[in-house]
Amino acid sequence: MFKIIIFYSLSEGMFSVLHRRQFAIIAGIMQTLFIVLFAKYVKYIDPLDDSRRVYSGTDYPLFQDVHLMIFVGFGFLMAFLKRYGFSAVSVNLLLSAFVIQFAMLLRGFLTVAFSETGLFSIGIPEMISAESSCAAVLITMGVLLGRLTPVQFLLLAFFETLLNVVVEHFVFNYLHVSVLSSKFPKIYREFQVNDSGRSLSVHTFGAYFGLAAAMVGHKKNVMEMDEHGGIHHSDLFSMIGTLLLWVFFPSFNAAIQEPEDARHRAIMNTYLAMASSTVTTFMVSSCVDTLGRFNMIHIQSSTLAGGVAIGKSSRVPTYSSNTYSGSAANAVLYPYHAVIVGVVAAILSVIGHAWISPRLEKSLHLFDTCGVHNLHGMPGILAGMLSIGFAYFYEPESYGKTLYHIYPYWIGGELNGDRENVSQAQYQAIGLLVILITAIIGGLLTGCILKIKIWNQVDDPDFPHGEMNYYAQSDVNFLSKYKHAQEQQRLRDREQMHEIY
Amino acid sequence: MFKIIIFYSLSEGMFSVLHRRQFAIIAGIMQTLFIVLFAKYVKYIDPLDDSRRVYSGTDYPLFQDVHLMIFVGFGFLMAFLKRYGFSAVSVNLLLSAFVIQFAMLLRGFLTVAFSETGLFSIGIPEMISAESSCAAVLITMGVLLGRLTPVQFLLLAFFETLLNVVVEHFVFNYLHVSVLSSKFPKIYREFQVNDSGRSLSVHTFGAYFGLAAAMVGHKKNVMEMDEHGGIHHSDLFSMIGTLLLWVFFPSFNAAIQEPEDARHRAIMNTYLAMASSTVTTFMVSSCVDTLGRFNMIHIQSSTLAGGVAIGKSSRVPTYSSNTYSGSAANAVLYPYHAVIVGVVAAILSVIGHAWISPRLEKSLHLFDTCGVHNLHGMPGILAGMLSIGFAYFYEPESYGKTLYHIYPYWIGGELNGDRENVSQAQYQAIGLLVILITAIIGGLLTGCILKIKIWNQVDDPDFPHGEMNYYAQSDVNFLSKYKHAQEQQRLRDREQMHEIY
Amino acid sequence: MFKIIIFYSLSEGMFSVLHRRQFAIIAGIMQTLFIVLFAKYVKYIDPLDDSRRVYSGTDYPLFQDVHLMIFVGFGFLMAFLKRYGFSAVSVNLLLSAFVIQFAMLLRGFLTVAFSETGLFSIGIPEMISAESSCAAVLITMGVLLGRLTPVQFLLLAFFETLLNVVVEHFVFNYLHVSVLSSKFPKIYREFQVNDSGRSLSVHTFGAYFGLAAAMVGHKKNVMEMDEHGGIHHSDLFSMIGTLLLWVFFPSFNAAIQEPEDARHRAIMNTYLAMASSTVTTFMVSSCVDTLGRFNMIHIQSSTLAGGVAIGKSSRVPTYSSNTYSGSAANAVLYPYHAVIVGVVAAILSVIGHAWISPRLEKSLHLFDTCGVHNLHGMPGILAGMLSIGFAYFYEPESYGKTLYHIYPYWIGGELNGDRENVSQAQYQAIGLLVILITAIIGGLLTGCILKIKIWNQVDDPDFPHGEMNYYAQSDVNFLSKYKHAQEQQRLRDREQMHEIY
Repeated sequence: MFKIIIFYSLSEGMFSVLHRRQFAIIAGIMQTLFIVLFAKYVKYIDPLDDSRRVYSGTDYPLFQDVHLMIFVGFGFLMAFLKRYGFSAVSVNLLLSAFVIQFAMLLRGFLTVAFSETGLFSIGIPEMISAESSCAAVLITMGVLLGRLTPVQFLLLAFFETLLNVVVEHFVFNYLHVSVLSSKFPKIYREFQVNDSGRSLSVHTFGAYFGLAAAMVGHKKNVMEMDEHGGIHHSDLFSMIGTLLLWVFFPSFNAAIQEPEDARHRAIMNTYLAMASSTVTTFMVSSCVDTLGRFNMIHIQSSTLAGGVAIGKSSRVPTYSSNTYSGSAANAVLYPYHAVIVGVVAAILSVIGHAWISPRLEKSLHLFDTCGVHNLHGMPGILAGMLSIGFAYFYEPESYGKTLYHIYPYWIGGELNGDRENVSQAQYQAIGLLVILITAIIGGLLTGCILKIKIWNQVDDPDFPHGEMNYYAQSDVNFLSKYKHAQEQQRLRDREQMHEIY
Repeated sequence: MFKIIIFYSLSEGMFSVLHRRQFAIIAGIMQTLFIVLFAKYVKYIDPLDDSRRVYSGTDYPLFQDVHLMIFVGFGFLMAFLKRYGFSAVSVNLLLSAFVIQFAMLLRGFLTVAFSETGLFSIGIPEMISAESSCAAVLITMGVLLGRLTPVQFLLLAFFETLLNVVVEHFVFNYLHVSVLSSKFPKIYREFQVNDSGRSLSVHTFGAYFGLAAAMVGHKKNVMEMDEHGGIHHSDLFSMIGTLLLWVFFPSFNAAIQEPEDARHRAIMNTYLAMASSTVTTFMVSSCVDTLGRFNMIHIQSSTLAGGVAIGKSSRVPTYSSNTYSGSAANAVLYPYHAVIVGVVAAILSVIGHAWISPRLEKSLHLFDTCGVHNLHGMPGILAGMLSIGFAYFYEPESYGKTLYHIYPYWIGGELNGDRENVSQAQYQAIGLLVILITAIIGGLLTGCILKIKIWNQVDDPDFPHGEMNYYAQSDVNFLSKYKHAQEQQRLRDREQMHEIY
Repeated sequence: MFKIIIFYSLSEGMFSVLHRRQFAIIAGIMQTLFIVLFAKYVKYIDPLDDSRRVYSGTDYPLFQDVHLMIFVGFGFLMAFLKRYGFSAVSVNLLLSAFVIQFAMLLRGFLTVAFSETGLFSIGIPEMISAESSCAAVLITMGVLLGRLTPVQFLLLAFFETLLNVVVEHFVFNYLHVSVLSSKFPKIYREFQVNDSGRSLSVHTFGAYFGLAAAMVGHKKNVMEMDEHGGIHHSDLFSMIGTLLLWVFFPSFNAAIQEPEDARHRAIMNTYLAMASSTVTTFMVSSCVDTLGRFNMIHIQSSTLAGGVAIGKSSRVPTYSSNTYSGSAANAVLYPYHAVIVGVVAAILSVIGHAWISPRLEKSLHLFDTCGVHNLHGMPGILAGMLSIGFAYFYEPESYGKTLYHIYPYWIGGELNGDRENVSQAQYQAIGLLVILITAIIGGLLTGCILKIKIWNQVDDPDFPHGEMNYYAQSDVNFLSKYKHAQEQQRLRDREQMHEIY
C-alpha cells in the first residue's frame, strides 16, 4: 500500500496522489471524527426507562419502512441512467451511511440535554430524524447525479446536512422573532411553524439546494451522454425505487407524528393523495403526448408527487428531550382535501417535466438529472402554500380536540400562545421563505466550494485525459471488478497511469 | 395542448382524437367523480376514539405488508414478458391506484353507517379491504396481460371491482336464503359463508372473471409475440415479484383476521403451506420435465399456490360499522393439515401449467398470459372445497373456544344460529358456487363490453397501421422517453401521424 | 409420466433414470417425512393463552423483516453471477423452504416439552429460529454457488441443518462441562455462552462449514467460467440483495432478543455498526485500488460486515418452553464501541477480498464463489473474539440492571451462578472453538458425502457429455422455459437424450 503511494508520489508528484487518495483521506478523517464524538458525547437512552415507547409504541416498524425507502427506494429511483446505475445505488448507500452518523451527532448537539449535561441520548426517534436528513441529501444528489465525483458528493453531504439541521432547528424551534415582528419581542421564542417539517425541510430544501448548486457549475447534460435507445432494464430498476417510495410514503409522512391520531391522519391523507396523484399522472401524461401515450419519466416520478405535497408533517422532535413527546399532526382534516392535493400535485409535476424543465435547461442551462424540481421542488412549495392556506381557512372548531396538537401556540392552549388563523398563516409563510432562501444561498455557496480545483472533478468528455475520472467513462471506470482485476487490471492501470500522469 | 387537439380534429376528424384522448377523458371523469363522492360522503374515523385499534392493534404493519405485495409484488410478478415488462409494472400501478379509491367508496356505500347517516368513515381496515379488491383486479389483469390497452384495463377494473364488492357483500353478509332452503325463511339473513373470503372472492373470482373475459375475444397468444431466447433478466425481475408475494403471503392471509388467535393461526398455516408447496413445486416440476430440470414458470408461480389454497380467510368486515370487530378465523387447526394443503396445491398448480394450460389453449383457444388459472384459479377452488371439507369433518369440540369466532351461526352461539357440520358445509358450497357463477358471467359480459370498437384496441400485428397501438410494438410504443423526445420524437410523431391518419 | 420413466429405464438402464429423477425422489421422501412428523408431534401454541405475546409483543413485524432478508435478500445477493442468477435465486428459495420445515422439527425434538409430553408447539418465535437456520445454510451455499447440483444442495442443507441445530443446542444450553472444567461438576449444566448465538452459530458456522466442504472437492473457479465484461445488470440485482440485508440487519440481530431493552440495544448497535462499516468500506476499497476507485464486490459485501461482527445476539430460546421468555441481550453498551466494531469489520472484510481470498485460491485452491469468508467468516470470528473481550473488560456495574439478562450465571443472579469476568470470557472462548471445530469437521464430512458419484454432479466443462448438467451450461440448461417448450424442447430433449445416453 504505502510502497505504491510513495512510488507514485516520487515519480508523479504529490498532486496526483492527493487526487487518487483524496476520497480515502477525507472519508477517513470524517469517520475518525465521528468515533471521537460518539465516544465523548453519546449514550443510549436508558432501555429500562423508555423501552415501552421505543419498541412497543411501534416506532420501530415505521422506522424500518423509512429505512427501506432511504436505502433501497431512493437508490433504485436514481438507477434509471444506464451508465450510472450502479454508481447511483452505491453512492446513495455511501452518503446515507455518512449522513445518519453526522446528523445524529449534529441534532444531539442542539438538544437541551446536551447543553445541560454535556451528553445526549439516542434511540429510535433519533434514528428516524437522521434518516430524514438523508432524504434531503439524496434529493440534492438526484439533481447532480452523474456530474459530481464521490469526493464532491461527500463534501456536499457534509455542508448540506450541517445547514439543513441548523435551519430546521431554527425554523421549528427558535427564531429571533423580534426581527420579524414587533408583536413577538422575546428573543428565542418558539417559532412553531407547524405542519411543514418534512415537506419544507426535506423536499423543498433538498431540491432548491441542489438546483442552486447546479447553477454555479456542473452544467453538463448527463442525459445526452447516456446511451439512447428503447426501453431498458434500467427503467425497471428505477420502478423498484418508485414503487418502494410509493408504498412506504404513508410511513414516511407518519413516522415522526405523535400521538396516534396525528399518525393515523397522516397515513390516511398520504394514502389518498398518492392514489389520486397516480391516476392523475397517467391522465395528464397521456394528455401532453401527441399520440396519447404515457411517458416513463412521469410514471417514475410524478406518481409520487401527491405524497410530497401532502407530506406536511410537523416538526421533528429536536428540542424534545426524550421525556417530551413532541406533539404534531397532519393538518388536513377531510379525505377529499387529500384527494385534491394529490390531483394538483400530479398536474404540477407532469407539467414541470413536460414544459418547465426543458425551458429551464434552454434558458438557464440548469440541468436537473432526475427531474427533482418536478418531484420535490414544486410539490414541496405547494405543500408549503397549502399549509398556509389550511391554517388560514380551517375553522379552529373543526380540528376538535387536536387543535393544540397541531398548533400549540393557538390562543387558549397550554403554552399561552396568542395565534389565530392569520398569524399562524403568517408564521407558516415565513417558515417557507426562510427554508427557500437558506436552501438557495447554501446551495450556491456549496456549489462554489465544490468547483474548487483541489477536489476531484468529473472529466469533461471533450477534454482528453484530465484527472482521474469517476463518471465520464461510466460505471466501468468508477468501479473495478473483482476478478481478473488482480492481473489484467494491474496491467491496464499501469498503462493508464503512464497516459494520465 | 388545445391547439394541437383542434388542429388534428379538424384535419383527421373527431374519431381519431377520441381515440388518442380516450384514456385521459375516462380517467379524468372517474377521478373527478371520486373527488365529488369523497367530498360528500366520506370522513375519517375519529382518531381519538379508535386510535388504539388503528395503530397499536398492529393493523398498520400488516397493511404495509399487503400494500407491498399489491404494488411491488404483483407488479413485478407480471414483468416476466420481455416486451411488456414496464407496461405490466406501470399498468399495475395505475389500476391499483384507481381501484383503491373506487373500492373504498363502494364498500362505504354498503355499510350500515352510510344507510343510517349518509356518511361513512374510513380507517386502516378499510384500506386493507380496498387492497384486497385490487388483488382481484390484478389477477384478472394477469390473464389478459399484453392483450388490452390501458383504456380497456381501466374499464375492466371498473366493472370487476363493482361486481366483486357487491358479490362479496352478498355472499358474506346477506343472501335471500329462503330461495335456497325453506329452513331459513327470513329474507336478508346473514348468510355467513365462513373461512372463504379471500380465496374465493379474490383469487377464484379474479381468475375466472379474467378467463371468461379472455374467452369472448382477445385470442392472441402474447407469449409467441414475445422474443424467444434463453434466460433473460425479465425472469429475475419476475422473481422479485414472486419472492415478495411469497414472503408476505402470511400477512395477506392474516390481515383481516381478528382476534389475535385467528391471526396467529392464519400466519402459521400460511407459512407452513408455503414451505411445503415450494418443495413440492420443485419436486413435481422436475418430474414433468423429460430431463429432470426445473421449469422457471413453475418456480415463479406454483411456489405460491400453497398460500392461495390455504388462504381461507374469512369475510371482510364490510357490514361492520367501525365499532363492530368482525370476528373470523382460519379454520385449519392442525399444522400437518396446512403442510398437506400446500403439497396438494403445488401438485395441482404444476400439473395445470404442464398439462391443462396447453390443452385449454389448443382446444378452447383460451390464452392465459401469466398462467393465472394455475396459480389462482384451481388453488382457489381447492380452497373452497377444503372449506367445505373442514366444516364437515372437524369435530366442533376441536375448535375449543374459537368455534363461534369461526362459525358465528353454529348451534349454541350468541347469534342463535342453528347450523352444524352438514348445514355449514352446505353454505360453504353455495358460497363457492355463487362466486364462480357470478365471476364467469361478469367476465363474459365485461369481455363483450371491452370488444366494442369504440375503445382503443391492441393492434393485430398482421394488420398494418390500424389504430394507435399501445402494446403491439411493445413498450417502446406504449411509452415515450423523456429526453430527445422534445425534438426528435415530435418529428417521428408527425411522420407517424401522417402514416396513420 | 410413468410411461416415460419406464420407457427410458428399459432402454437406458435404471442408472440414468436414477440421475434424472434423483431430485424428485429425495425431495419427495423428505417432504413425506415432514408430513408424517408434523402430523404426529406438532401442534400450534394455544392462541388464547399466548396470543398477546405472539403478535402484540411485536414479534411478527420483526419476523417479517428477517423473512424478507432470508428469501429476497440472500437470494438476490447471490444473483451477481451472470450465468447463475436465476439458479441462485431459485435454489435459495428451495433450500429455505426445505430448511424451515426441517429446523422447526429438529428444534422441537430438542425441547423440554417434547421430552415430557411427546408433543411440541410452534409459534412465531419458532419461525424466527427456523429462519436463522436458513441463514447458515444460505451462507454455505454462497461458498459453493455454481459448483453443486440442486440434489447436492438439498443434501448439504439436510446435513448442515442437522449439525447446526444440535451444536447450537449443545453450546447454548448443555455442555458436559465436567470435561472442560472441574469447577462445574454437574453433568448437563447450562453452559450459557452468551451474546454469541447468531454470529457464531449462523455466520461463523455457515462460512467455515462451506469452506471446509469446498476444500474436499468442487475446486472449480466459477468466476472464470462466468462471462467477462463491464458492469452488468446482475450487479444491480445483487445490490437489491445487499441493500435489503443492509436495511433489515438491525431486525435480524434484534429478532430473538428479549426483553425490550436488549432488543433496543441490538437495534441501535447494529445500526451504528452498519453505518460506520459502510463509510469505511468505501474508504478502504478506494485505498486498495491503484487508481483510487471503488470495487463493486466490496460494496456488495463488505458494507454488511459491521452487522455480522456486531451481531452478537444471544442464545436462541431452544430450551424454552413457550412460557419461558429466554432472556438475552446485546452486550455492547456504548455507541462508540459499535461504531468502532463496524470500522474494524469493514477493514478486515475489504482486506480479505483484496488480499486473503486471492492467496487462498492460489495456495489452497480454495474457491469461495461469493467471498463468504470475507463477509461472514472473518467478521464472525471477530464477533466471537469481541464477545470474549467485552465479557472480560466491561465492569459488571456498567451493565446496570441488565447484567443478569445478559449473563444469567454471573455471581449474584437468580440462577446462583458463580461466574465473573474471567470465567465468563473463558466460556465465550470455548463456545467459539466448539462452533469452529464442529463446523469444519461437519463441512469436511459433508463435502466427502457430496462427492459420492451416486449424486448428480456438475459437469466438468472440459468433459463432453458427462451426466445431465444443471449448471455447467448455465441457467439455460438448469431450467426449461414454459412456452414452445411443449414442442420444440421435446425435440431438443430427445436429441440430447440420444447424445447423452
